[in-house]
Amino acid sequence: MIVHMSRTATPEDQNRVLDRITKMGFKYELLGATGINVVGILGDLSQVPESNFADLCGVAKVMRISKGYKLVSREYSAKSKVIELGGGVMVGGSELTFMAGPCSLESVEQMMAIGAYVAPMGIKIIRGGAYKPRTSPYSFQGMGLEGLKLLATIREKYGLKIVTEATGLHHHIDKDGNKETRNVLENVIEYADIIQIGARNMKSYGFLQELGILTKDCKKPILLKRGDSSTLKDFLLAAEYIVANGNPNVILCLRGIRTFEEEKFQRYTPDIGAITVLKRESNLPVIFDPSHSAGYRANVAGTALAAVAAGADGLLIETHNDPTNALCDGDQSVTEDQLKDIKSKADAIWNLLK
Amino acid sequence: MIVHMSRTATPEDQNRVLDRITKMGFKYELLGATGINVVGILGDLSQVPESNFADLCGVAKVMRISKGYKLVSREYSAKSKVIELGGGVMVGGSELTFMAGPCSLESVEQMMAIGAYVAPMGIKIIRGGAYKPRTSPYSFQGMGLEGLKLLATIREKYGLKIVTEATGLHHHIDKDGNKETRNVLENVIEYADIIQIGARNMKSYGFLQELGILTKDCKKPILLKRGDSSTLKDFLLAAEYIVANGNPNVILCLRGIRTFEEEKFQRYTPDIGAITVLKRESNLPVIFDPSHSAGYRANVAGTALAAVAAGADGLLIETHNDPTNALCDGDQSVTEDQLKDIKSKADAIWNLLK
Amino acid sequence: MIVHMSRTATPEDQNRVLDRITKMGFKYELLGATGINVVGILGDLSQVPESNFADLCGVAKVMRISKGYKLVSREYSAKSKVIELGGGVMVGGSELTFMAGPCSLESVEQMMAIGAYVAPMGIKIIRGGAYKPRTSPYSFQGMGLEGLKLLATIREKYGLKIVTEATGLHHHIDKDGNKETRNVLENVIEYADIIQIGARNMKSYGFLQELGILTKDCKKPILLKRGDSSTLKDFLLAAEYIVANGNPNVILCLRGIRTFEEEKFQRYTPDIGAITVLKRESNLPVIFDPSHSAGYRANVAGTALAAVAAGADGLLIETHNDPTNALCDGDQSVTEDQLKDIKSKADAIWNLLK
Amino acid sequence: MIVHMSRTATPEDQNRVLDRITKMGFKYELLGATGINVVGILGDLSQVPESNFADLCGVAKVMRISKGYKLVSREYSAKSKVIELGGGVMVGGSELTFMAGPCSLESVEQMMAIGAYVAPMGIKIIRGGAYKPRTSPYSFQGMGLEGLKLLATIREKYGLKIVTEATGLHHHIDKDGNKETRNVLENVIEYADIIQIGARNMKSYGFLQELGILTKDCKKPILLKRGDSSTLKDFLLAAEYIVANGNPNVILCLRGIRTFEEEKFQRYTPDIGAITVLKRESNLPVIFDPSHSAGYRANVAGTALAAVAAGADGLLIETHNDPTNALCDGDQSVTEDQLKDIKSKADAIWNLLK
Repeated sequence: MIVHMSRTATPEDQNRVLDRITKMGFKYELLGATGINVVGILGDLSQVPESNFADLCGVAKVMRISKGYKLVSREYSAKSKVIELGGGVMVGGSELTFMAGPCSLESVEQMMAIGAYVAPMGIKIIRGGAYKPRTSPYSFQGMGLEGLKLLATIREKYGLKIVTEATGLHHHIDKDGNKETRNVLENVIEYADIIQIGARNMKSYGFLQELGILTKDCKKPILLKRGDSSTLKDFLLAAEYIVANGNPNVILCLRGIRTFEEEKFQRYTPDIGAITVLKRESNLPVIFDPSHSAGYRANVAGTALAAVAAGADGLLIETHNDPTNALCDGDQSVTEDQLKDIKSKADAIWNLLK
Repeated sequence: MIVHMSRTATPEDQNRVLDRITKMGFKYELLGATGINVVGILGDLSQVPESNFADLCGVAKVMRISKGYKLVSREYSAKSKVIELGGGVMVGGSELTFMAGPCSLESVEQMMAIGAYVAPMGIKIIRGGAYKPRTSPYSFQGMGLEGLKLLATIREKYGLKIVTEATGLHHHIDKDGNKETRNVLENVIEYADIIQIGARNMKSYGFLQELGILTKDCKKPILLKRGDSSTLKDFLLAAEYIVANGNPNVILCLRGIRTFEEEKFQRYTPDIGAITVLKRESNLPVIFDPSHSAGYRANVAGTALAAVAAGADGLLIETHNDPTNALCDGDQSVTEDQLKDIKSKADAIWNLLK
Repeated sequence: MIVHMSRTATPEDQNRVLDRITKMGFKYELLGATGINVVGILGDLSQVPESNFADLCGVAKVMRISKGYKLVSREYSAKSKVIELGGGVMVGGSELTFMAGPCSLESVEQMMAIGAYVAPMGIKIIRGGAYKPRTSPYSFQGMGLEGLKLLATIREKYGLKIVTEATGLHHHIDKDGNKETRNVLENVIEYADIIQIGARNMKSYGFLQELGILTKDCKKPILLKRGDSSTLKDFLLAAEYIVANGNPNVILCLRGIRTFEEEKFQRYTPDIGAITVLKRESNLPVIFDPSHSAGYRANVAGTALAAVAAGADGLLIETHNDPTNALCDGDQSVTEDQLKDIKSKADAIWNLLK
Repeated sequence: MIVHMSRTATPEDQNRVLDRITKMGFKYELLGATGINVVGILGDLSQVPESNFADLCGVAKVMRISKGYKLVSREYSAKSKVIELGGGVMVGGSELTFMAGPCSLESVEQMMAIGAYVAPMGIKIIRGGAYKPRTSPYSFQGMGLEGLKLLATIREKYGLKIVTEATGLHHHIDKDGNKETRNVLENVIEYADIIQIGARNMKSYGFLQELGILTKDCKKPILLKRGDSSTLKDFLLAAEYIVANGNPNVILCLRGIRTFEEEKFQRYTPDIGAITVLKRESNLPVIFDPSHSAGYRANVAGTALAAVAAGADGLLIETHNDPTNALCDGDQSVTEDQLKDIKSKADAIWNLLK
């Protein structure tokens, strides 16, 4: 629920509103640019009539936000959120964002090779999974903490920001059976510039809650991926979990959804239409991952350019210096040349439409 | 199966191949630009070994096309098909194709108003349904033959080509209960420049067969829409039905597919990834209809531009002079201003990527 | 809209209601057992207020049916429809209905063999496709009229009723290129006891309309299959098309729907939940086809028994005397022994739950 | 990979096989009833040729299990797993299993009332969520530890076993903002007889791994629910995660999958066909939850009976003493009378088919 104070309302009027909110057991957030004007009330207000606030002195209007998600909605804040990563790197700002890198971290050589071609293209954020969610318990589960340290080296060497996935609150076990002392999320929070939450965890609400709490102070940006069969409403509510628990810096990341795709054609369906819907419904930046719908390298460019034309704020792309020998997702990783081509065309479309 | 003759093959060598094909009960098509080089064999060859032709004198190579669709595949003809509508209007050529108009024909006034703003934008093809497939038997079923005549008037007045749907082999009944003397397909073949086959009929194979036969001589282009839950393989096989029965001029038209969309967000999911797959698998032109995934006007532009960026040869868009009073699909029809904006941006992306 | 006359209403009162309906351009149907009580008004009444009839003398209540489908709804007729096939054979009655037979008619020997084991089991309806909708134009398209005649022979010999598919209004072409003189629907109407409309044609509304009209007099039962991605609302509206055009004898037939099934597991998803929904929403009998979700023979029994337990009125099952050599769908055709086992268990569950 | 020793193999022969497995870095499990016969090799053996073991003395046959899941497959163990809960209560045994109770724990009164009607029906396992995964951060998140204690009281009073969900490795926060000292999984392991893992966490692989490790010693049974868009292969691999990490006692629980369902009809699609597939592919017991596809109370019975007819080992059903006032999922909770009716019919079908 949002309470708009009238132009002539006094600080005392507003305090009376805040007081009532607190006494009813709710929290609030001041939304206006100056001290007095708009108050957002947080919590389950489904049983609270508007009149509880409308009858207070100085109140101009009371609006109910009925969609479930509040803090992430356009109704709550019409202004699009810009997320700053430091050093002038932004997501949701005036430049198209590129995040590129391998699915999985494999070795120093691999990351040096990829960093060496990604950075000169003007790409400022590198991706790479240290912890990998794998459908089989017998598959390579990622380099773990060692991988995070490798990412930090690459960041240093090439001046790149890092986005990497936190797969949960468990403790990673390496292939020799050794367990890391801190849990995965704690490790990722320390090393990453952007903390990725994968599609498979989008509905792990307890994890999202803990994530919001643990990043309440540092406010490190969270890249939240849409679950492969999640509705957009549920996707926005998952973002709301993080924001409501203390971290407002959420980047929405779309990817393919599960439909009735055919082998050899594409793996998931890129729901490009969701970009328009999310930009209208939410104030958060929207990134598109064309690699996780494509399935095959030859499909990536078309979907990437489509996402930019549809209004996405950026792209998250898998690239590999040696795709045929990649440990994971090699089929859908683009080469250096393909990445360069996508980047230049995507930038051109972005500039054309701005 | 495709038989490649060697460079030194004589006309007699080729005749021997054609002879054998005919004797085995199959048909053939000569695919090469000059008389002697490539022979396409048509029919169910799954039980026929390549050696039946490979051992003939002058044969260089025999290739099996194992995908089911043959005539529409890239393997069969690497060259992209360009469809000529006369007067210099083409689909699949060097210009981005636009087809725009209302979902349903309603009145002379409506079509005059729409023609009057569509034509000056440089759009050369107008759409409009005279026969409407409606989910309810109690809904308006279209103007019928009268609508086709209206389209002919508009064609004349504004110099536009016409695309309109043939909904079957039945006889249309007007609201007073009068039955038309010729069936719907016969009427549409006479009036249309492009015969549209709707998503709901994509698997009416008997109808597709009859369509191929009835247009064998005139070879009027067919715009075939993908069924809302059709796989791409089945879509290409439906195109193959038309081509195999005599009409090679098929335009593939993608639209939204049925997934788990939410009311008020979007109605179907625009499968933009299918554009890349179809352009790779097939030699036919690919058009995208953003209106039939959008559901809501505000979603159309994003998907339309995305389709062009992904490599579509054109767009099919619903527009209405008075969307709020449209008899059908008003919510997803764009206004004149929106259409103009989409056209100029789409053309700019097209030119950028060519 | 349904008008309930009061108990004390006179024939004159009712005539005044009928008069007003006719003058407004609508049709009506008398629904009550006796002459005076309930009047169903047909047509698009969305713009007509209830008060148009409520203010007439003798009217007790006016109910709007807002779902689109009317004639097939429980609201319209609370009584479940029983469809009589003659000779005491019924669908929707006190016995569980079995329809069994091959996907496709192949030869006299095949049908004699199948009839010889189906009939003694107490199965009274045999299925078999004379006209086959095939995804590939190069596949066997069915025996055509010759197949219908074969079905008639089997009917005669084994005292079975026949259900066979009408694939459209086109003219069948045999493998030698000869076209039948009458169209497929006309031929099927002559020979079949139940006219099957396949899932692929469920939204060919023009065909459904023509079907309703052509069977208006004979009222031969129609077995309408749900499209593989059709919602239940659209399925009921398709049935409404047939009923509204004159033939009230529609049997709803569920089958698998398209989801994200995996090869080797099952081909479609059997939407067993739809049985309960359809029995609640509609007054028509509901049959389930386990073969067209199963994909594999080993899956048929489980789904067949589940459908009966969920409340289906009958089963439509593919069986073949020699499944491994079947021309079509051999993988999902059960053997004689399997069919016998399914029949006896299904009957036992049916008797248990009645 | 499974190594079958020959009948004449000596203990030394087998030791040589075990030795080679260990030296290659893999683990093994002895599968045969007696000491010498069948050895299961665990780990990623995709790059290891069968000949590595086939050439050893005493080896009869080497079989590759190519499906990804091994320990949970029928190939690995043809015998169906029976899970013992103590006191003679079993899942997967000769009796049909019933688990019933409310979606969410609300109060002592509620649980006393439900226990009082569930137990006398012969139902031996009660369900109830102390920790609730909710799509909105503002919804009631469950009673937490207090709820678990309440379940323990009910267990004591009515002699019931408890199944309750562990939603993750986070620490529950109550409505006053107090955080529990142990994490959710630790608390649930202490109190539950069966630990439920919800559909939303089915792909939280780190959580599944930790779950396997933490229950390695107690081996408390895990009820793993299928994700709403999970393929069956991924579902079996999720079970494999738990078993491979030390706890073999996994119960598979099916529920509705996400398709294109319509409001007011049903919420998810009950994939009854999956029962047959899972029973064939896996050695684990299969339970069906009709409540989480039904959406509406009136749909529950049909799907429940269907699941039993299709071969499920049991049912998990939501029931509530006062459904209209339930805090969660009241619409799909059945009443005492409905539950009793389902139980008696389901038992009858079970007995009929055994």
